[in-house]
Amino acid sequence: MIYLDNSATTKPFPEVLDSFVAVATNYFGNPSSLHELGRKAERLLSQAREQVAALLSVRPNEIIFTSGGTEANNLAIKGVALQYRKRGNHIITTAIEHPSVTEPCRQLEELGFEVTYLPVNAYGRVEVETLARALRDDTILVSVMHVNNEVGSIQPIEQIGELLQRYPKVIFHVDHVQGIAKVPLDMKKARVDLCTMSAHKFHSLRGAGILYVRNGIRLSPLLAGGGQEWQVRSGTENVAAIVAMAKALRLSMEAYEQQIRQLHVLKERWFEALRHMDGIELHTPIKHSAPHIINFSLDGLKSEVFVHELAKQQIFVSTTSACSSKKRAPSKTLLAMGVEPKRAERSIRISLSWENTLEEIPVVVRAMEAAIQKLQGVKR
Amino acid sequence: MIYLDNSATTKPFPEVLDSFVAVATNYFGNPSSLHELGRKAERLLSQAREQVAALLSVRPNEIIFTSGGTEANNLAIKGVALQYRKRGNHIITTAIEHPSVTEPCRQLEELGFEVTYLPVNAYGRVEVETLARALRDDTILVSVMHVNNEVGSIQPIEQIGELLQRYPKVIFHVDHVQGIAKVPLDMKKARVDLCTMSAHKFHSLRGAGILYVRNGIRLSPLLAGGGQEWQVRSGTENVAAIVAMAKALRLSMEAYEQQIRQLHVLKERWFEALRHMDGIELHTPIKHSAPHIINFSLDGLKSEVFVHELAKQQIFVSTTSACSSKKRAPSKTLLAMGVEPKRAERSIRISLSWENTLEEIPVVVRAMEAAIQKLQGVKR
Ligand SMILES: Cc1ncc(COP(=O)(O)O)c(C=O)c1O
Ligand SMILES: Cc1ncc(COP(=O)(O)O)c(C=O)c1O
Repeated sequence: MIYLDNSATTKPFPEVLDSFVAVATNYFGNPSSLHELGRKAERLLSQAREQVAALLSVRPNEIIFTSGGTEANNLAIKGVALQYRKRGNHIITTAIEHPSVTEPCRQLEELGFEVTYLPVNAYGRVEVETLARALRDDTILVSVMHVNNEVGSIQPIEQIGELLQRYPKVIFHVDHVQGIAKVPLDMKKARVDLCTMSAHKFHSLRGAGILYVRNGIRLSPLLAGGGQEWQVRSGTENVAAIVAMAKALRLSMEAYEQQIRQLHVLKERWFEALRHMDGIELHTPIKHSAPHIINFSLDGLKSEVFVHELAKQQIFVSTTSACSSKKRAPSKTLLAMGVEPKRAERSIRISLSWENTLEEIPVVVRAMEAAIQKLQGVKR
Repeated sequence: MIYLDNSATTKPFPEVLDSFVAVATNYFGNPSSLHELGRKAERLLSQAREQVAALLSVRPNEIIFTSGGTEANNLAIKGVALQYRKRGNHIITTAIEHPSVTEPCRQLEELGFEVTYLPVNAYGRVEVETLARALRDDTILVSVMHVNNEVGSIQPIEQIGELLQRYPKVIFHVDHVQGIAKVPLDMKKARVDLCTMSAHKFHSLRGAGILYVRNGIRLSPLLAGGGQEWQVRSGTENVAAIVAMAKALRLSMEAYEQQIRQLHVLKERWFEALRHMDGIELHTPIKHSAPHIINFSLDGLKSEVFVHELAKQQIFVSTTSACSSKKRAPSKTLLAMGVEPKRAERSIRISLSWENTLEEIPVVVRAMEAAIQKLQGVKR
């Protein structure tokens, strides 16, 4: 099997799964229980929080554990809007966000908020000047993703943060789901107030995510109830998944130090190999793009059949983001970049992890060539 | 170890954990991915949905998987309120609900909704006539729990459902977290529209819950995004936790058939043993109470020190619900039942599962007697 769909989800590290099992078996107590079993679970939870905070260079009380990226994005966006609605009702985001940012914004529009969706340039990048022009007196929130999940373009988070230094009342949220442990982001330096991460994108298990909430920012709870997670996110804590996530984050950050160059080499080689193939157009920009996402389109071939053809050889790639792929809509990021709709419908996304190798490239290229030949033969 | 805090959380069944590990390892694909790995994960997810639906005698498309009970309650309550706000803005609930029902109601009050919190009688039970009198033309939602988590009282869900037959526009939500697989509830017969369950209360893992949503009821999504779970609950599905939950539900329902009588015997014996002890007052009513929760209070002893004293003998009980225990507030259910605040502060909750035995009773009783003697000695 050659798995090239790591932006959709990653295979859990075996040692991460082991931690999950150990905690779920031996420390199954409810962290809110007063007795020893509860206290042990609570201690593990605190340790995980400290570990995550240290890895992200923030404070433990700035870490909120959620059920995943979607919840963290919804909490950030709706939580700010409802908490700060007296301050203003204008939100700025971009045309290329993940649906878990866009859809909460649409819901807020129904509640009377106004949302500006910033365009991107041909490289899938928001321009800071465009954002600057969109800022208004009643802007309460700016939400911009770090790494785009469809084409891998990196947004100018630090520059946006610099701009927002002059707007202390505007809260800055970054969806860092595709960036964490792949493209560094210094939350303090970039003046980020809220930052989303999701465990299953860095070789941990589903069921856990992180929302960094800078001290001083208040959020209206999305999941209200028992008051866990500093009163911001209620629900019995998924200690096993959280401990597993902290471990996976540590392993991924360590892998980063050692393997980021290797990942860049991998991507270079992929670019090279694809450039040599006929009828392929690369959509991932060369500059300002993440080391693990490669988006391209195929002349005259529907991407869905191509994905299925490769899957027959146990090679797994994607047409677009996973959650959009079944809707069969063309990639909205490509459309926002100005790619023709017909072309956008033929896009393929390869997404890498630390576990992919150079040796896979010629194997996949041969399979791709065979698939193209076969499918074009069928068409004729 | 004698674990008597099963209402806080349960120990996962080993075979349920095995299923989790098998799915997380071998079927880690994103169910939304078009390729084989995604399709396999999707098939597991559908099978789990069909299994859960069959066990609950409802349709698969009436099952929404969430991250747990708190999320399901928030989705039910806020989802109805926001979806049906044009229909009316009055909500009825009770004074003894779990905070994951009460707190969303409070949030809705801030948004302009009106909420009636029904009182309960001395047996911790809402009276149907009280509810009938509270219904108004603009009532859109009635939310009543099945089994109370602090004292185990069973609410008259079927009779409320019968009453609500005459109010077809009123949506009926039931928090069934403490009832599932312990006290039967026929969702169709009781005219329930929405029903909450949580995996970690029936020996599965945290990270999964169920909201039953009757066909025809629409909910404004709490977690908006990629459109998973029939567009009602977005986020990459936690397939491993969901498959594990379906298995635990099956095992629990099977255990129900075989062991419910044993659980009732266990509770009878507990009642008997406690009645013979000095200075103990039972708060769990004899009639209309669940087979697994026993609430009582101790003359002149703070419950917290008592919990710690028993924990030294590896006996784990609780003062009140887990999420309230750290706040050191007296049980709100006991207060609503008319128990004096001083007495309510001294309450202890024992909560059983299928794994508890008759043999534990004398061991715990002896430990309790020793603890009482020791602590009263200290006081003097
Ligand atoms: C950029 C981005 N944001 C948010 C999410 C949502 O994360 P999750 O699947 O954990 O809900 C994803 C992935 O699905 C993503 O790629
Ligand atoms: C009656 C009741 N409702 C809801 C919940 C919340 O469930 P969860 O812990 O899965 O969020 C609980 C337990 O905590 C409960 O006892």
